[in-house]
Amino acid sequence: MSNTHKVTFVDAGAPVEVPTGSTLTEAAHQCGVDINQPCGGQGRCGRCVVKIQSGEIRRRSTLRLTNSDVEDGYALACQAIVETDVEVYVPPQEKIQRRLVTDLTARKVTVPEGYDPQAHQTLQRYCLSIDPPTMDDQTDDWSRLQRALRQETGLERIEISLHLLQQIGTILREGGWQVTAIVDTNQGDSEYPASVIALYPIHFPSDKPLWGCAIDIGTTTVTVWLTDLLTGQVRAQSAEYNQQIHHGEDVISRIIYDSKDHNHGILQNLVLETINNLVEKACLRAKAKPEEIYKATVAGNSTMIHLLLNIPAANIRLSPFITTINHLPKFKAAAMGLRLHPEASVVILPSVASYVGADITAGAYSSGIALTDKTTLFMDVGTNGEMVLGSKDWMVTCACSAGPAFEGAGVLDGMRATKGAIEEVWINSQTHEPSIRVIGGGKPRGICGSGLISLLGEMFTAGVVDKSGNVNTNLDTSRVRSGDHEGEYVLAWADETSHGKDIVITHVDIDNLLRAKAAIFAGYMVLAESVGVSLSSIEQFLIGGSFGQYINVEKAIEIGLLPDMPWENFQFLGNTAVLGAYEALLNWQVNEKINQIANQMTYIELSADNKFYDAFMSALFLPHTDLTLFPSVAKQKASQ
Amino acid sequence: MSNTHKVTFVDAGAPVEVPTGSTLTEAAHQCGVDINQPCGGQGRCGRCVVKIQSGEIRRRSTLRLTNSDVEDGYALACQAIVETDVEVYVPPQEKIQRRLVTDLTARKVTVPEGYDPQAHQTLQRYCLSIDPPTMDDQTDDWSRLQRALRQETGLERIEISLHLLQQIGTILREGGWQVTAIVDTNQGDSEYPASVIALYPIHFPSDKPLWGCAIDIGTTTVTVWLTDLLTGQVRAQSAEYNQQIHHGEDVISRIIYDSKDHNHGILQNLVLETINNLVEKACLRAKAKPEEIYKATVAGNSTMIHLLLNIPAANIRLSPFITTINHLPKFKAAAMGLRLHPEASVVILPSVASYVGADITAGAYSSGIALTDKTTLFMDVGTNGEMVLGSKDWMVTCACSAGPAFEGAGVLDGMRATKGAIEEVWINSQTHEPSIRVIGGGKPRGICGSGLISLLGEMFTAGVVDKSGNVNTNLDTSRVRSGDHEGEYVLAWADETSHGKDIVITHVDIDNLLRAKAAIFAGYMVLAESVGVSLSSIEQFLIGGSFGQYINVEKAIEIGLLPDMPWENFQFLGNTAVLGAYEALLNWQVNEKINQIANQMTYIELSADNKFYDAFMSALFLPHTDLTLFPSVAKQKASQ
Repeated sequence: MSNTHKVTFVDAGAPVEVPTGSTLTEAAHQCGVDINQPCGGQGRCGRCVVKIQSGEIRRRSTLRLTNSDVEDGYALACQAIVETDVEVYVPPQEKIQRRLVTDLTARKVTVPEGYDPQAHQTLQRYCLSIDPPTMDDQTDDWSRLQRALRQETGLERIEISLHLLQQIGTILREGGWQVTAIVDTNQGDSEYPASVIALYPIHFPSDKPLWGCAIDIGTTTVTVWLTDLLTGQVRAQSAEYNQQIHHGEDVISRIIYDSKDHNHGILQNLVLETINNLVEKACLRAKAKPEEIYKATVAGNSTMIHLLLNIPAANIRLSPFITTINHLPKFKAAAMGLRLHPEASVVILPSVASYVGADITAGAYSSGIALTDKTTLFMDVGTNGEMVLGSKDWMVTCACSAGPAFEGAGVLDGMRATKGAIEEVWINSQTHEPSIRVIGGGKPRGICGSGLISLLGEMFTAGVVDKSGNVNTNLDTSRVRSGDHEGEYVLAWADETSHGKDIVITHVDIDNLLRAKAAIFAGYMVLAESVGVSLSSIEQFLIGGSFGQYINVEKAIEIGLLPDMPWENFQFLGNTAVLGAYEALLNWQVNEKINQIANQMTYIELSADNKFYDAFMSALFLPHTDLTLFPSVAKQKASQ
Repeated sequence: MSNTHKVTFVDAGAPVEVPTGSTLTEAAHQCGVDINQPCGGQGRCGRCVVKIQSGEIRRRSTLRLTNSDVEDGYALACQAIVETDVEVYVPPQEKIQRRLVTDLTARKVTVPEGYDPQAHQTLQRYCLSIDPPTMDDQTDDWSRLQRALRQETGLERIEISLHLLQQIGTILREGGWQVTAIVDTNQGDSEYPASVIALYPIHFPSDKPLWGCAIDIGTTTVTVWLTDLLTGQVRAQSAEYNQQIHHGEDVISRIIYDSKDHNHGILQNLVLETINNLVEKACLRAKAKPEEIYKATVAGNSTMIHLLLNIPAANIRLSPFITTINHLPKFKAAAMGLRLHPEASVVILPSVASYVGADITAGAYSSGIALTDKTTLFMDVGTNGEMVLGSKDWMVTCACSAGPAFEGAGVLDGMRATKGAIEEVWINSQTHEPSIRVIGGGKPRGICGSGLISLLGEMFTAGVVDKSGNVNTNLDTSRVRSGDHEGEYVLAWADETSHGKDIVITHVDIDNLLRAKAAIFAGYMVLAESVGVSLSSIEQFLIGGSFGQYINVEKAIEIGLLPDMPWENFQFLGNTAVLGAYEALLNWQVNEKINQIANQMTYIELSADNKFYDAFMSALFLPHTDLTLFPSVAKQKASQ
């Protein structure tokens, strides 16, 4: 008799053999199939729903499933015990995208409905047949080209750079006056004339892609979406650590580094190199050439934008926290050091303040907060926590200096969400023994942000820490001990880890995490109070930032990082900044709308706000001093 | 008894001793005082009029002097025989400015009447007191600066370069928010917003000059006028050979040189170096710094402008003779390679065609042809002969490929008008012995343009050449001989020259000169015919180009280089191109007017015109096949 069963996941290649009694989650893990587990596999969130196509499983729990769901074969993977060979269908929307910084994290991007390159796109390509000059018509080359373009486009004012002027005489003749012109019409920006970006001595086939790219410069990760502007399709995505990271994890340390005289320009070069490499990678994949990219949009926080342009960022850090510029003019790629077509138009999206940058204005568009009637909280969880409260009619925004604790910094065994990071933790409330899930499988090396949230929530739930975050060193387990940093909890023993050392979380780590989550929660409170709404009246909570995607909502609520609202009110949107940059790349009206958003937002400076300090102090507990703000947690605690 | 007399020229230093019977011209020459002699000292033009303050002279002729002139002590220097010690006043307007290319050829420039920097100047300087940022007003630096500028100027749209953006945060704080901004308002150019050129962390004193410069790029000579835009005064002038001259004397040879692949950019660098050196020189003299020059205007022929911008000029030379661009956008100095303030606005004046450039449009303004009611011919005598016929209501223009014969090229002993050049010649019609005047005195080295005109006229008058330009080798003088180049005339024997070789003019030289003057004269004819006016209805003849200043009108008419009209109809205006650039530098309305002029001019392409060929053939004689066009010459010839 076989005590193993064959589990087949549809579209996932070869089946796996698992022992009787395994969960489908375990089988999926073994098979390399990712299944979302916001609740950590406790059968409570219902996110890990799968459909059993054939074979039998036993349902440990059917919470969040209706009877008809069960009849139709649906099951929660974490609660499904394998009892025969089974074939399982995992709905695609439930697949976890690993927050690995890699080119393979390509995301499915839908071209905005009704995208019409003629109407929406500022970048246009024209095949021109120009009358050659004669003794009777000695019009100069540039006027002749302008004349043809005016006839083709109806544009009155067209300009050209010196660099291109130096070439047009040759190009026009080489092409026998049959040429293709790439023009930025500057539509929607009446202040500036149209501009010829490039000219080629040939007529391009009409289906040759017309390349543009959307760039998001995160403090940690830089993302590039290479897009065919004719169809709107993202044809290649690439992402990589911001190479500046060697000189500081967060914007403050970058600013300090950049402000030192002899470092001037180093961070600019590093981010340029990062972007240029990513562009090259994306081009390789899409069979494009960087010099065929004629337009780019850029999102990023204010510090990233200043450093990109080598504008000193020192005053962003110093009170009263002033940027040099929020609304940037258009630049040419070459003038900025970007290796696209040298004349490519680069639109940098607008910022609102020192700590509410173009990533937030772009995200406010792409998340939909700026278009909705609902009272919405939009948060971009990156290295900092920036948030916007409002709807299409009003928006208030602030930034919490949460610091990079949730990115693994300031935590002894913290690390980024790459291979070897513990991303999810379960602690047995009797034995206080942990179970862990490691990105990429194998032995763990440290704990990433989602792992820390999960860990802290589990420690709190299992009584390893009290509501002040103090480790209960009286517990009857060797996992808890007084380490170099007061109390600490051992998550993995040295012989279980890839580096042969214990992986622990210390009192100091917990303190840092509490401060980070308290800053973020205080942000919600101050924003809501500033416009006189209560947290409970917020109808939806949109979370941007790739990190957001991996937050275990239940745990995040348990520790007081997210407000206590129905799980279905949370939407994880991934990188909303690059999405906003992409939508602005396609449509000048979106670009205009993002400028309006930047002007529309009321910025609240938290560092000058006593209310923020009070709210922060109240939030330095698990989940909060005021348990009425966390009814579900209070209820759960009460039931223990 | 003394047979010498002391001649004192007022303001000319020590007196000179001359033998009884000397002319005042000779005394002036000896004293280093230059007196204009358009007619070559024959007492006919009246240009060498001087005033005898004390002492006695004998007047050989009083032609062109009234009785009352004589009573008042006036005399023609060339006709005044010294008989006692005399003191002579030479009116300043009659002083010859040597056409030496040197910084010392500074010309008196009158600031245009009514110049009002507030109303006319696009470059403005503002001392700003800006509200510093606070926690309650976190407006970004650039918006804050814009706000202050808008209040000060009323300008709505103001832009700034990335280069300056990188500095403003530091400058604003270094100056404690008290700063001076230099702004190009772009007034008169509604297409472009105002632009901040520079920002300083200090309030400038109101009398500190605000520097701009006018630049004329001649094929041979480059001229820079450094100007205080607050007063309009030219504070320093500098001029020097265009360093491109080593790679060709005329535009055609420059284009050929530039069109060779490996030469690309060389001519641009040479002219940039020439300009940058001249700017530095002018700055030294005016105690200015090149980086304090915020604005420049540039005139020059189309080839010079193309080479300045490194735009290939090859098609200017090839039929159908097309420039790449006639109406240029504004550039920043640094983008062009000019060492002024890097952000300085550089306005390049417009061209009309391949051979009617910005030197002509600038000259058409500064000469006054574009503002007058009179039917006027304006000619710029440079390396090429460009001319404009018209008035304020209409203008036709053409360029004659006259070649540089009158600049001394293509002539065996030709040279430029520098020290050692024979600039004026008289030939005794009996002995055929010449008298010569040499620039800078001393032994001659060659013959410059004005000397060639003078020589050709004298040879024709004295019968050394016939009307076809053939040397009469039958004359009873060793001056005439059959040399290597058919007939030739020896102007100076080897022992009289600085290089110890005979200075001659050959049949080939004469042929070249005839072709050059015929091309120019044919130009007049075609222009006049194109609009149906006769040469005789031309009311004034304005001659620009520093060369023009030294033309002996009488001789130029004798050889058929200038049309036969009363001498007083000719005005020599010097460098009209730099003057036009200077006036455009001061006043945006002038700049606008010059653009209108460029649009208003009808260009006539002579190379496509059979009428030009016919007119050219008819003009290949001294003075012309049709003597009715030269009644004064016909009359003089008849009287011989």
